[in-house]
Amino acid sequence: MEEVQEQSKNALKKAQKQAKAAAAKAEKATNVPIVGGKGQKKDDSKEIIGITVSKEGHFAQWYQDVVIKAELVEYYHEISGFYILRPGAMYIWNEIRAWFQERIAAMGVEETSFPMFLSSKSLEKEKEHVEGFAPELAWVTKAGDKDLEIPVAVRPTSEAVMYPYYAKWIRSHRDLPLRLNQWNSVVRWEAKQTTPFLRAREFLWQEGHTAHLTEQLAETEVLQILDLYAGVYEQLLAVPVVKGRKTEAEKFAGGYWTSTCEGYIPTNGRGIQGATSHALGQNFSKMFEITVEDHDKNKVHVWQNSWGLSTRVIGVMVMIHGDDKGLVLPPRVSKYQAILIPVGLTAKMSAEDKAAHMKKVDGLYDDLKKAGVRSHVDDREGYTPGFKFADWELKGVPLRLEFGPKDAANSVVSYARRDTGAKGTIPIAGLATEVPKLLDTIQSDMYNKADEAYKSHRLVLTDWDKVVPALDARNVVLIPFCEVEACEDRIKELTKSENVEVGPDGQKMPSMGMKSLCIPFDQPEGLVKGETKCLMPECKALAKSWTMFGRSY
Amino acid sequence: MEEVQEQSKNALKKAQKQAKAAAAKAEKATNVPIVGGKGQKKDDSKEIIGITVSKEGHFAQWYQDVVIKAELVEYYHEISGFYILRPGAMYIWNEIRAWFQERIAAMGVEETSFPMFLSSKSLEKEKEHVEGFAPELAWVTKAGDKDLEIPVAVRPTSEAVMYPYYAKWIRSHRDLPLRLNQWNSVVRWEAKQTTPFLRAREFLWQEGHTAHLTEQLAETEVLQILDLYAGVYEQLLAVPVVKGRKTEAEKFAGGYWTSTCEGYIPTNGRGIQGATSHALGQNFSKMFEITVEDHDKNKVHVWQNSWGLSTRVIGVMVMIHGDDKGLVLPPRVSKYQAILIPVGLTAKMSAEDKAAHMKKVDGLYDDLKKAGVRSHVDDREGYTPGFKFADWELKGVPLRLEFGPKDAANSVVSYARRDTGAKGTIPIAGLATEVPKLLDTIQSDMYNKADEAYKSHRLVLTDWDKVVPALDARNVVLIPFCEVEACEDRIKELTKSENVEVGPDGQKMPSMGMKSLCIPFDQPEGLVKGETKCLMPECKALAKSWTMFGRSY
Repeated sequence: MEEVQEQSKNALKKAQKQAKAAAAKAEKATNVPIVGGKGQKKDDSKEIIGITVSKEGHFAQWYQDVVIKAELVEYYHEISGFYILRPGAMYIWNEIRAWFQERIAAMGVEETSFPMFLSSKSLEKEKEHVEGFAPELAWVTKAGDKDLEIPVAVRPTSEAVMYPYYAKWIRSHRDLPLRLNQWNSVVRWEAKQTTPFLRAREFLWQEGHTAHLTEQLAETEVLQILDLYAGVYEQLLAVPVVKGRKTEAEKFAGGYWTSTCEGYIPTNGRGIQGATSHALGQNFSKMFEITVEDHDKNKVHVWQNSWGLSTRVIGVMVMIHGDDKGLVLPPRVSKYQAILIPVGLTAKMSAEDKAAHMKKVDGLYDDLKKAGVRSHVDDREGYTPGFKFADWELKGVPLRLEFGPKDAANSVVSYARRDTGAKGTIPIAGLATEVPKLLDTIQSDMYNKADEAYKSHRLVLTDWDKVVPALDARNVVLIPFCEVEACEDRIKELTKSENVEVGPDGQKMPSMGMKSLCIPFDQPEGLVKGETKCLMPECKALAKSWTMFGRSY
Repeated sequence: MEEVQEQSKNALKKAQKQAKAAAAKAEKATNVPIVGGKGQKKDDSKEIIGITVSKEGHFAQWYQDVVIKAELVEYYHEISGFYILRPGAMYIWNEIRAWFQERIAAMGVEETSFPMFLSSKSLEKEKEHVEGFAPELAWVTKAGDKDLEIPVAVRPTSEAVMYPYYAKWIRSHRDLPLRLNQWNSVVRWEAKQTTPFLRAREFLWQEGHTAHLTEQLAETEVLQILDLYAGVYEQLLAVPVVKGRKTEAEKFAGGYWTSTCEGYIPTNGRGIQGATSHALGQNFSKMFEITVEDHDKNKVHVWQNSWGLSTRVIGVMVMIHGDDKGLVLPPRVSKYQAILIPVGLTAKMSAEDKAAHMKKVDGLYDDLKKAGVRSHVDDREGYTPGFKFADWELKGVPLRLEFGPKDAANSVVSYARRDTGAKGTIPIAGLATEVPKLLDTIQSDMYNKADEAYKSHRLVLTDWDKVVPALDARNVVLIPFCEVEACEDRIKELTKSENVEVGPDGQKMPSMGMKSLCIPFDQPEGLVKGETKCLMPECKALAKSWTMFGRSY
């Protein structure tokens, strides 16, 4: 959460304290430790501690509850600010990785793996860049019991690790474009409050680093990659984004200009940066002496880009789609798209009848598998169907298929959608065609719902007095803006607001000011060049663009 | 290179010094920097500095030459002992990763991602384990400009990172087996000489960590994984291995027993550990209190395994298959299986004729693509066919296809195999069937050649006096052995040998003693239990097994 103001930080702390108290209370009630520790009671039954707070009323606590109880992450108690990504999260990340990897490989991007450590000498070559990252660097100063002669930092990003080698490898325009990408983790030892996925001291990402002969070639790629990032959000995660350019105040440290896709969290009305694709221009190539001779034998500094997408995407998806029952996963990234649960198997039924019924269930599973549906039969003994329903709802599986003796008699399967709760039946004969169709519908309905929420809370304003009330009503706003950094700082000051946001305790509390999210590529009508003024009341300058502002992570 | 003796270390250093001198000489001759640096001359032509030393005569230097000039790695000059993996290496690693990942997923292994840092508290829980890794730990002591309250180490392996959470997550026998794997990099700050792929201070690997209810279930998995590791070597990399068990002296620190697959480098007759799959027994589960109640409500410490395969595999493959022209890649892991080079396009030919010929080349490419052959047309302007031949030979592409006007007139494509140099022609009409067949033949011929070399240098000996001469003649040996650690130490002493190995300067120099490689699962005949003595002359004990010994990495 960038730019979290002190007040809201305190509010967060308060909320977390309360969450902890609530967890302790629940732990007492159930006698099952929620927060791990030694000496916990081992119990042969498996409890579900469902989500204990509402998304609307206690959003921060709800989020922490969901990511832990749906088994996406585990807190790493040994070192604060670090999280364990569990198989549920890694499945989603790997789906994203495969989708993105296929597309960048087709563009000619090759994979590489540079060391995780960075010498201070390389780091210091680009002044703005080093200043941006220095406060968060983790320094290795010892190996075994010996002090290192020269300490090394764990990479927070790899520009300074990689570009000395770009200088070496790029000798002629024939070596361009050079496009390399790596999938790794980076470390930024944040002093700010950490949150699973959104801000962690170590996170997984991909970082692409490319070099081109001309500004135009570089720019084309920046936008191609941004489209892929938007594709990850919109096509895979059913999350709408607004594509645009960052203001000078918000661009990448040491870069030329930054393109971004920006998301929106309806529950608290905040904007959230989705992923950024940076045009670095010739800034780094000048510092690292990355030059070629062009076709006319002129010495040219190459044009560079860098672009990264991190596991943050998972957090955004959880925040947007989740509900009071837990996680809600879009079918495209869900390990199990349909969970098949045998029901109505009473104690009176013979073992033979039960076995015959389970054989039918297996047949349904086979039909789904052939139809390309990732499904799973929950045949765990000793758990009630109700328990299983709640368990898979918590974990977000998009479609529940129930099959009991009555369904069998009617040659149907009963279903329940995770996103809407809607229920119905599907004829067994139509399972292989209807289930994929239903999953497509769920995917697009989830997107459309989120898109509707974003669109209806993206207000185009030309009256300054409406800005703060709009923010308080959970909107982001598009306003005429001069794009000047000092003006942006002042806007942040002016839009802090007292006693507006409802905290987890039901009380009102102060709220952060708004910052610029992006200058959308898709500009609203109505801004007259040379005429329309910047909306900030103290600013005398002309507006350069409609800029999207919001309270944000 | 584990257990490198001081003498051979010095020899290595000498070889490296000589390699450096040779590189400097070559640099002078060609005016192209081989070792990178600033201020290098930018030149519009692209030189190939071929391999300048022979594999047989200067193996260590040859290896470094190949991995760098074939663009698998780049030295990371900023911090010693670290290497950059370039796209050529990452392609191979990703092929291996995909093959292995598919198979462990089918076994039910799920993916996870734990933090890269380790608290000293967790590390110290297992005494043997911490002693094994402590000298190589990299310690982060500072974040930004602040000292950390408690320093954290970068993981050298993740047992101590993960197992506190196994204790938390495993509550009942229903939670077993728990099988998690992660693909990451680990850091071991080696004091020993580093070598690309074989020993680096940071390397990529996968580490699997699993927990089972019984010893038998755990053991079954240990061996399943070992088979997959052998599959990576034998099926993908065309490298034969011997599967077996490590002796007590060589097993994993803190483990129960270790299974391994062991390779062999014909050029210097050394054994090399391929990959290990460890049965940890209940040692870690006792230290980390990982217990369940079994079906009879008894408290049981779980049985654990850990298993890892690293980028070392690439180094072994390079050493075995490479030759004086450079890398030789098995078709299964080569990015380009066939390189298609237009030839015979003389200056006299009209632009029209050239274009018509290139269109035919593109047609051949399409045919190959449809047949599932990964191929590439080298249509670079300004390079002679001879230059291109040498370039792709250096990079190890298994099959070269040449196509000139004469080939076109005869409706054939000319080919040259990288592994044997054999040449011939293929009718264009048969390209789609013949090329895949030829690639299969290359793959199996490469394996068979290496297998033959290994088999003929794996001597079963019952006469101690023949051991050292066998080693000097580049063999590994199978001898009756008592399996006692002290005896193994003594064997290492006794088999050091003076003035036998031919160094890169053509001089004789001292050589290391042999150590145990494994106790092969496939035991030779002839060992009589209770009768056959350990072969070590000073040892009075009975032999427990035929154990494979060798000088080794």
